[in-house]
Amino acid sequence: MKVNVYVTLKKGVLDPQGKAVAGALVELGFKGLRGLKIGKFMELDLDVQTAQDARKLAEEMCRKLLANTVIEDFRVEVEG
Amino acid sequence: MKVNVYVTLKKGVLDPQGKAVAGALVELGFKGLRGLKIGKFMELDLDVQTAQDARKLAEEMCRKLLANTVIEDFRVEVEG
Repeated sequence: MKVNVYVTLKKGVLDPQGKAVAGALVELGFKGLRGLKIGKFMELDLDVQTAQDARKLAEEMCRKLLANTVIEDFRVEVEG
Repeated sequence: MKVNVYVTLKKGVLDPQGKAVAGALVELGFKGLRGLKIGKFMELDLDVQTAQDARKLAEEMCRKLLANTVIEDFRVEVEG
């Protein structure tokens, strides 16, 4: 079962990578950029029977390894 | 206007980061992981009038900087 995981920095946590990329876009001449935040996106393929099991397993993986829950939020999305 | 950008490796491109994380999950005792791919997820805030303009600007940013189109695909999703 395909599961998408999105890991983003919590509100208020500094995002130097996002800041650097935003600065680079401005230097390239892009106008109209008000903000840019960078996170991680993971596509998991899980060998489980139900969407519920997939969500449970993916969330457990996030808490144990995929996200640093001190500074990051995660969102799990089970595909069809 | 809020725009989400997803950057993923093209099919066939090696993903050592994904492989390392998948290996770590197995070592942590997780079962049932068939595959894991890691990409980037960016949240842009653009100062434009229409969703069409937002998409156009974000796609241009992807082609110029945010994605390495030799090895990466990108997907742009304009919110509300």
